Amino acid sequence: MPGQHRVVVVGGGFGGLYAAKALGRLPVDVTLIDRRNFHLFQPLLYQVATGGLSPGEIASPLRFVLRRHMNTEVLLAEVTDIDPANRRVVLRDGEVSYDTLILAAGSRHHYFGHDEWEPLAPGLKTIEDATEIRRRVLLAFERAEREPDLDQRRAWLSFVVVGGGPTGVELAGALGEIARDTLRHDFRHINPAEASILLLDGAERVLPSYPPDLSVKAERSLIKLGVRPLNGTIVAAVEEHGVTVERRGGSEHIPTRTILWAAGVQASPLGRVLADRAGALLDRGGRVFVEPDLTLAGHPEIFIVGDLANFSHQDGKPLPGVAPVAMQEGRYVAEIIRGRLEGHAPRPFRYRDKGNLATIGRAAAVADFGRIHLGGFPAWLIWLFVHLMYLAEFDNRLLVFIQWAYNYFTRNRGARLITGED
Amino acid sequence: MPGQHRVVVVGGGFGGLYAAKALGRLPVDVTLIDRRNFHLFQPLLYQVATGGLSPGEIASPLRFVLRRHMNTEVLLAEVTDIDPANRRVVLRDGEVSYDTLILAAGSRHHYFGHDEWEPLAPGLKTIEDATEIRRRVLLAFERAEREPDLDQRRAWLSFVVVGGGPTGVELAGALGEIARDTLRHDFRHINPAEASILLLDGAERVLPSYPPDLSVKAERSLIKLGVRPLNGTIVAAVEEHGVTVERRGGSEHIPTRTILWAAGVQASPLGRVLADRAGALLDRGGRVFVEPDLTLAGHPEIFIVGDLANFSHQDGKPLPGVAPVAMQEGRYVAEIIRGRLEGHAPRPFRYRDKGNLATIGRAAAVADFGRIHLGGFPAWLIWLFVHLMYLAEFDNRLLVFIQWAYNYFTRNRGARLITGED
Repeated sequence: MPGQHRVVVVGGGFGGLYAAKALGRLPVDVTLIDRRNFHLFQPLLYQVATGGLSPGEIASPLRFVLRRHMNTEVLLAEVTDIDPANRRVVLRDGEVSYDTLILAAGSRHHYFGHDEWEPLAPGLKTIEDATEIRRRVLLAFERAEREPDLDQRRAWLSFVVVGGGPTGVELAGALGEIARDTLRHDFRHINPAEASILLLDGAERVLPSYPPDLSVKAERSLIKLGVRPLNGTIVAAVEEHGVTVERRGGSEHIPTRTILWAAGVQASPLGRVLADRAGALLDRGGRVFVEPDLTLAGHPEIFIVGDLANFSHQDGKPLPGVAPVAMQEGRYVAEIIRGRLEGHAPRPFRYRDKGNLATIGRAAAVADFGRIHLGGFPAWLIWLFVHLMYLAEFDNRLLVFIQWAYNYFTRNRGARLITGED
Repeated sequence: MPGQHRVVVVGGGFGGLYAAKALGRLPVDVTLIDRRNFHLFQPLLYQVATGGLSPGEIASPLRFVLRRHMNTEVLLAEVTDIDPANRRVVLRDGEVSYDTLILAAGSRHHYFGHDEWEPLAPGLKTIEDATEIRRRVLLAFERAEREPDLDQRRAWLSFVVVGGGPTGVELAGALGEIARDTLRHDFRHINPAEASILLLDGAERVLPSYPPDLSVKAERSLIKLGVRPLNGTIVAAVEEHGVTVERRGGSEHIPTRTILWAAGVQASPLGRVLADRAGALLDRGGRVFVEPDLTLAGHPEIFIVGDLANFSHQDGKPLPGVAPVAMQEGRYVAEIIRGRLEGHAPRPFRYRDKGNLATIGRAAAVADFGRIHLGGFPAWLIWLFVHLMYLAEFDNRLLVFIQWAYNYFTRNRGARLITGED
């Protein structure tokens, strides 16, 4: 029996899930493969890392999201290899054939050749990362409370965030709120507001991908929350008791017991697999250079979307690794597949940039809408609205909204649990 | 400087926390010691284990709960020993002196001499237990979906809950709901409703501590949810691929890949410490026999409350290990301490039994109010109201209520994430 056209989607993040959702209405068989059983709303992951939201509030089971798509099967599995010659995806425990493959395997944080830094300076990509960061941050205050030695106590109360992009800014801002507001009445021997929060970045300003005036606004908001942005600062070494940085031509040691990594990402190793098996070209971050229609050169049956793709056909610069790009790419690929089934010619992909948002903390954000730049409370309201709107596509909106409203008015963060192993 | 009277409370569960809360208004110094930084609302832990609620929704940071009590200090620490002669509590990393000690160290699940069963049949006492059970239950359905062999698939779709008390009944009922409602549209190769859920108990009926007519009601509700109660059944062996049980004089092997343990508890090892150091008498479950005022015989400065105490002065039977007993005991001890400061004579403790509630699933519960016995939806409404009322004393009520209302109407369980390591 010749079955329907078979589309395999690897990855249930924004790129893969939006592709799969759009394919649910087409006469194709869809298999979505992910190692996890849920879609993670990554833009709010920093809220889990800082005790504002619970993991369940920013994750939706993939099977639940796709339960009404009877042409779609979800596979909890790990892809270990791709065999383009035979159109097969190899799993750790099996294999799946495809007619069309959509690779949306995303990225991990990246330590620029210093993988040994990872246990000392965790990054923020998964639920487990977030609860681990939450554990470290909360434990640091606990240790400080019980530490009689002044220098040691100061090290426990020092937090270093490496990387001044949106994730670093969000994390540092949330740490500032925790120290100044959330924990205000919690301790008897320390004043959490005395915590030092440093935000390190190699560039000369935070949010270097934003217009300079918004960087200034963001730095001002950060400073209000007690965060000290240290721009032009390169991390030379990460140790258990501090970081060594290079700054203004000199070297400096910053004693701290909590280092968070938000400095860089590396595309999924499946990019390397495509390079080996199908001659894909990779950029320095491991991303696959794609054609104007998001296919792999020479392989019109293989699409790459999201953080794993380097799409540089718009204005020469690769599109950024953010959720809106992945979502639009995912939807575009579903459109192309429909066009092929119906015999239309594909138009090239165009990213419609609706603006960029980064939040800094309670009632502060920056918004870049091209000619319009906003900061402070208005930007934060927009940020809130946009994120709730996107969450609404899954099932968690109301809950997150209530939790936020509650946190906002009480300045509390109820999900600040120390869980897991030391 | 002769400081104030110093009260040390060990354990931040219902007994310890309610004692500490009541002591916040007295002219004493209070130190609450717990290994965890949060109070856990254990009666709802089974909801986390079955994906209905997130951990943060049933836990409150102890520091937050006690933040306004300026005479109270919270210590995140593990108690390893007690030295009654010198009135000291020994921590893993330090020690604390007391004038009065309140021991509320609770209990753990217990395998009746078969500790080797624990990795195969996890119990439900901590947040980590709950997320581990959630992981196993959800993974079992995932494995079944991908299993071609019929017998293997059936084993993955078989769930065995050992222990027909309130926790076992709640877990089994929730598993029934997951299989019949929550996952209804989620899979393509299996029908989750075909899952077999067995509830094993050695007694001749479920909820043996309840009146027989309520056991009948509970069994009827369980059967409606697809749960098969196997009463009069003793577990002889727990293995990776099943349990061996003794039943009606014969031995039987039940193939299953998921075994949950709700069969028994053992008091904290600090009871044993008190036996060694202060001659405390323990019952078979490791609980300390206490005097009518909840003190340890010969040690009027040591109180024991909650699951660690065996209080048998009311009608000969020890009080059950439930939250209301611990709460009333904790409050009573604070009253006694106040009486001593003010020169009153103590009256003996009396537990005021306001009734017992056990929930079975969506809109079903049993309620025992002495002469009044309720089942079904009315009992469930009372159960819901009572639990929300107690949660209200912390800060999570609204959120849990919304989550519940949402789950109730949609039959969804949004927090069904598979997290952690295999």
